Amino acid sequence: MIAVVLLGAGNVGQHLFEAIKKSSDTEVVQWYNRDIAKLQPFKNETDICDSIESLKEADIYIIAVSDDAIKNLALQLPFNDRLVVHTSGMTSIHDLDKSLHRGVFYPLQSFTKGKPIDFKKVPICLEALNKQHYVILQQLANALGSKSYKINTEQRKTLHLSAVFVNNFGNQLFRIAHELSDAKNINFEILKPLIVETADKINELSPYMAQTGPAVRGDKKTLKQHLKELDNSPHKLVYELMTQSIKRTHGKR
Amino acid sequence: MIAVVLLGAGNVGQHLFEAIKKSSDTEVVQWYNRDIAKLQPFKNETDICDSIESLKEADIYIIAVSDDAIKNLALQLPFNDRLVVHTSGMTSIHDLDKSLHRGVFYPLQSFTKGKPIDFKKVPICLEALNKQHYVILQQLANALGSKSYKINTEQRKTLHLSAVFVNNFGNQLFRIAHELSDAKNINFEILKPLIVETADKINELSPYMAQTGPAVRGDKKTLKQHLKELDNSPHKLVYELMTQSIKRTHGKR
Repeated sequence: MIAVVLLGAGNVGQHLFEAIKKSSDTEVVQWYNRDIAKLQPFKNETDICDSIESLKEADIYIIAVSDDAIKNLALQLPFNDRLVVHTSGMTSIHDLDKSLHRGVFYPLQSFTKGKPIDFKKVPICLEALNKQHYVILQQLANALGSKSYKINTEQRKTLHLSAVFVNNFGNQLFRIAHELSDAKNINFEILKPLIVETADKINELSPYMAQTGPAVRGDKKTLKQHLKELDNSPHKLVYELMTQSIKRTHGKR
Repeated sequence: MIAVVLLGAGNVGQHLFEAIKKSSDTEVVQWYNRDIAKLQPFKNETDICDSIESLKEADIYIIAVSDDAIKNLALQLPFNDRLVVHTSGMTSIHDLDKSLHRGVFYPLQSFTKGKPIDFKKVPICLEALNKQHYVILQQLANALGSKSYKINTEQRKTLHLSAVFVNNFGNQLFRIAHELSDAKNINFEILKPLIVETADKINELSPYMAQTGPAVRGDKKTLKQHLKELDNSPHKLVYELMTQSIKRTHGKR
């Protein structure tokens, strides 16, 4: 049984709590948050606290607070030589105080408040400074049913950047399509199956092989008609730049 | 039983053939293609032909050829006053010869060669010039298990444009993430669950509500670090423009 103390009650903290609760191989022995009010709904499920001084003993301390607060919180921990990990894509392992046994436990997924997620679908990027600690992190990921990957700080930053492209920018493309279709009284439902299929396709084909459409075909007539339709639209630039990007990838002009 | 003559053996034609084959309420009575060789593998499943003169009688003729070839093929049809539809997002219903009963049967989905698709996940955009023909198209969509929507030519063009944003441009974002992660020896598998979850989320939240990340948070520190990492990368412009686009949508500067 892996004993976990969880620090932070935001989105990631809450999803981790739920995932750990479901597992029979690990347990949240205590949940710390600066503002105890956020933890009150969970007081019958684990020991809750808002005092950093009264942290219990555990195998792993998981810091799930905002990036800016990680360093400071780690500094305040009233012990040395225990395994402390953060969960941030953008933060170096070395931002944790070196009196600690440091690690990173970065779940690469989009967590929605109130929407439970199956941790089988949450890859965990692990980093530790020695083998022994790495193995403990691996055991924790396994206990949650997650696949884990060895990812160093530099790689993790690139993953975080890549995640912005596929998640935030991908979602913004959906928003643009939503705006375009709303303006013509088109039901956005029509586009949803295409959005889901586009994502699912990468499980069978590389994005390179999966590409279709006017840009990769070099279909100038369609490109011209689309640009004409986007005249005076703020989305025209996105159309032009993404078309260029596809052409570059596929060696077209 | 709705009798269909299919014209064209490309990607859409083949997926339509398979979908119609599965349904007990409709049947491909004949499959025409200019090049008969492409139809040989199906010769035991339906009547195949390469002569436009020998087309059989049917309830619906579905033209599934490239956009540029639709008009000409419709002109050559050796009959009048039969229901003929095309399957194109970018082509007007009026591009079909007016001696015909004209319609559009536009499946809005990404079809992958050799990957069967459940037509329950293929919304069909229908257009006809009178109620009676519209009802027949609706019956055909129902027979395939598809949801259908009434969409006029102008709306259909906007849908096609929107599909380019979510499908082609979305896929290009996956490609960019693939390039970025490959360059750091990161397994692209790590990003796949996030890609799928990002798409699935629109079934619960609007893209507006689903947006997260540094652009919508106004997290300047992360934006700056990401841009620094993209220095000298061809993808920096995409990052900048998509970030601007998100900020505009959410009223940030």
